[in-house]
Amino acid sequence: ARPRVGYFYTGKTPYMLIAEEIRHLKVNDVKSVPVVVKGDTSVYDTIVTLFTEDVGTIFIVNEEGCLEGAVSRKDLLKVTLGQGDIHKIPVQVVMTRVPNVVTVSGEESVYEAARKLVEHEVDALPVVEVVPQDDKKERLKVTGRFTKTTVARVFVELGEKR
Amino acid sequence: ARPRVGYFYTGKTPYMLIAEEIRHLKVNDVKSVPVVVKGDTSVYDTIVTLFTEDVGTIFIVNEEGCLEGAVSRKDLLKVTLGQGDIHKIPVQVVMTRVPNVVTVSGEESVYEAARKLVEHEVDALPVVEVVPQDDKKERLKVTGRFTKTTVARVFVELGEKR
Repeated sequence: ARPRVGYFYTGKTPYMLIAEEIRHLKVNDVKSVPVVVKGDTSVYDTIVTLFTEDVGTIFIVNEEGCLEGAVSRKDLLKVTLGQGDIHKIPVQVVMTRVPNVVTVSGEESVYEAARKLVEHEVDALPVVEVVPQDDKKERLKVTGRFTKTTVARVFVELGEKR
Repeated sequence: ARPRVGYFYTGKTPYMLIAEEIRHLKVNDVKSVPVVVKGDTSVYDTIVTLFTEDVGTIFIVNEEGCLEGAVSRKDLLKVTLGQGDIHKIPVQVVMTRVPNVVTVSGEESVYEAARKLVEHEVDALPVVEVVPQDDKKERLKVTGRFTKTTVARVFVELGEKR
């Protein structure tokens, strides 16, 4: 059948085109620099880092830069309401631990990463790459951060393209 | 000139088409229910509301549901680090006040709303409509909430459309 006006030669609808573009973009093309602390950092110092770096989520890494956990503003707000001394509690006590942290690979699509944010109801994902280890444990090196802000930025850029 | 394969009959590029779609969607089509408290609510009770309603930003309204201010997780985290008693401080003391709250109309596009989130570096916008007043002051009735989560949701839906 002859395509209607407004449709592609190839028979693609506008929506298919948008979907293609969004699924084509890679996390590595749009990710930000990760903000990380070590697990023995106090909750107070972690909050200070959150404000000075102006991010919503902080990733906790070991000496080799491999992912151990994550804390969000929401997690930290909950801790400050508790009875403990946030100058003494190390962040590793209150963080969400690997493997419960939702991660994304830099080779995954922006669509897939956004889907993870929505599905798991988190504000940010660490961008990771798998580091082969001698033992059976898998290590994830943190190479970036993908957040709802990243999605909003990509969205605005799509709306501006010509 | 004859359009290249992959281009529109109308001469539009794929990117123009994506931009059109994003600029066509209205805030009213995708907004969420706003979560609001009165200005005399304590900071503590505001934080409790934030957790029970599971939102990142709370809007402060007067008796008529008109916007007075906004507080985010970040604002509330800062207050909990201070010396004051959060059970006694009313939220109106720590909120960002109108007219410094960035707002959006339900008739604006999702693109325009996302642009405001990115440009003003905020997580959420109250969706408002102007209420005519006898005096010269303009009142803004809060009718919804538009957040980075909304953008991520719309983004994922665009990626799934056929």
